[in-house]
Amino acid sequence: KEGLFYPPDPQSAQGCTLGGTIAENASGPLGVKYGVTKQYLLGLQVVLASGDVVNLGSKTLKNRMGYELATLFAGSEGTLGIITGITVRVLPLPESQKTLFAVFNDMESAGECVSRIIGAGIIPAKIEFVDNWYLRRIEELTHMGLPVEAEALLLVQSDGHPQAVDSQITKILAICREMGAREARAAADQFESDRLWQIRKSSFGAMYSSAPTILSEDITVPRDKIAVLIKKCKEAGRKQGFDVHFTGHAGDGNIHPAIQTDYNNQENFQRALKAVDEMVEAALELGGVVSGEHGIGLEKQRYMQKGIDPLALDLMKKIKKAFDPYNIFNPGKYWEE
Amino acid sequence: KEGLFYPPDPQSAQGCTLGGTIAENASGPLGVKYGVTKQYLLGLQVVLASGDVVNLGSKTLKNRMGYELATLFAGSEGTLGIITGITVRVLPLPESQKTLFAVFNDMESAGECVSRIIGAGIIPAKIEFVDNWYLRRIEELTHMGLPVEAEALLLVQSDGHPQAVDSQITKILAICREMGAREARAAADQFESDRLWQIRKSSFGAMYSSAPTILSEDITVPRDKIAVLIKKCKEAGRKQGFDVHFTGHAGDGNIHPAIQTDYNNQENFQRALKAVDEMVEAALELGGVVSGEHGIGLEKQRYMQKGIDPLALDLMKKIKKAFDPYNIFNPGKYWEE
Repeated sequence: KEGLFYPPDPQSAQGCTLGGTIAENASGPLGVKYGVTKQYLLGLQVVLASGDVVNLGSKTLKNRMGYELATLFAGSEGTLGIITGITVRVLPLPESQKTLFAVFNDMESAGECVSRIIGAGIIPAKIEFVDNWYLRRIEELTHMGLPVEAEALLLVQSDGHPQAVDSQITKILAICREMGAREARAAADQFESDRLWQIRKSSFGAMYSSAPTILSEDITVPRDKIAVLIKKCKEAGRKQGFDVHFTGHAGDGNIHPAIQTDYNNQENFQRALKAVDEMVEAALELGGVVSGEHGIGLEKQRYMQKGIDPLALDLMKKIKKAFDPYNIFNPGKYWEE
Repeated sequence: KEGLFYPPDPQSAQGCTLGGTIAENASGPLGVKYGVTKQYLLGLQVVLASGDVVNLGSKTLKNRMGYELATLFAGSEGTLGIITGITVRVLPLPESQKTLFAVFNDMESAGECVSRIIGAGIIPAKIEFVDNWYLRRIEELTHMGLPVEAEALLLVQSDGHPQAVDSQITKILAICREMGAREARAAADQFESDRLWQIRKSSFGAMYSSAPTILSEDITVPRDKIAVLIKKCKEAGRKQGFDVHFTGHAGDGNIHPAIQTDYNNQENFQRALKAVDEMVEAALELGGVVSGEHGIGLEKQRYMQKGIDPLALDLMKKIKKAFDPYNIFNPGKYWEE
């Protein structure tokens, strides 16, 4: 409906389904201000393992009738039932929005800057970053005319009442400069703003087209730990002979370090896995989680034991058993049965 | 911590515990803008029926490691385990806030006005209302100097950047006047603003001190249905010989119609229950729910079958069984075992 928007707008919005974003509890760049899918989910119609159709949740903003079953399907990755009907909350479109960018000498400084912005009590709509490798690769593919000399680029979007946006942009630019940004300014116009966000949107394709196999992680830490996490990820890569490349939703502590490898070169691939293991270990040590938005599927099953309290894992398996006793929904996902 | 606040701030904040608000998935006047408890819950430590201590969720804003078990405890009313540790998200305090009030000739007009405000894409921090009975009763108890001639009082709080607040207040006042408010203006100062919110805070005590037994409901409907719901509740009361009194979180569709009765006068009490049944029926017919924030406990068990899809109820009981096979946690709540 005109004038409204659905905030858990993932980067994959052009290709994904609404049911898929719920099964994934997806989120996107707006997560820093607007949160994730489960926060917008009001009601679901679900086909159960028995073949019965059940209605969970409600159409109302508040509902205290029993356990939060609709939310339980958020992030269930298709293992509990098939989602056939969806009621979500939408919000009025913000009156205005503005984008700023800041160029840093390294990713750690960009990460530290993000922590300072949040620490100052400022919550923009988006805080994203990309490193120099991404900038050069995207420029190579798109010829957009990007600042390819930047070692790290921070992209921030502010939305709301025009004066509130201006005030927030001014405060964030001041922090970026304090934190040593080589350049920091608001996008001159909508064209420049669109071009800047195109960088972030192109990053997935830019990475996955660059090597036979990409290991792109989804680790997430408390937001004051981003700079440390980036440093540790770089070290983890270096030890195994890899340059790690970074992009991600810095504003909510969720970064995507990526390693280029080749599954058919098992020596190389195994080293890449070791580097990833060490990055995951670092995130967990910093009080973080293995996945912030991409979920488990098959690839991250090896971290379920380490990344979740074993007793919580037992409870999850009990829920799976209660909902789907014959394991007919997406078998093999999350864990081996 | 200074400069921060926890938005699911229930009216009972002075007396309730944080664990209780989570077990209740509580919410308060700020719900219209800031949502409910489950949206701020990141992680829990819980003692399970086995005596084991389990950690659920995380410290991060985003977490995709398995099912949403921490959220499952939001609204579980103590039936799944004992909450012993809590991690919640807090937000920076808004830069400024302002209160406005509008006086209407009846509660239906006040309810219709709320629908118009939301329909115009305006989301204030709070939209609350009280009826004439509450105003007179609170004045009787407090001598605050309230507008006791008002048939219905709408209280709205706007928060955020000062200019955004001013702009929102102006728009809302215009809608209130369009909707026939006899008086509508912003509070002159903090003193008047505090006094206005004191009305809403006093309403619980004002009602419960007024009769031997109070049946105060918690029905919630989609926000464009508030005016109809109020009308139907009045009719339901009148049929059984009761005046129904109204207060509530109109901004999220959650109203608290109350009936004064006496449990020791069973003829009167049974009539009151019949009126309540009819109000609940009206809410369900309007696409609403039996409880928006107060939950089930013992009192609303009789509506579990009607207010929830029976298949959803079966799933809830399966979860209870999986978590607490010997029914040691808060037995008898939600449903008879």
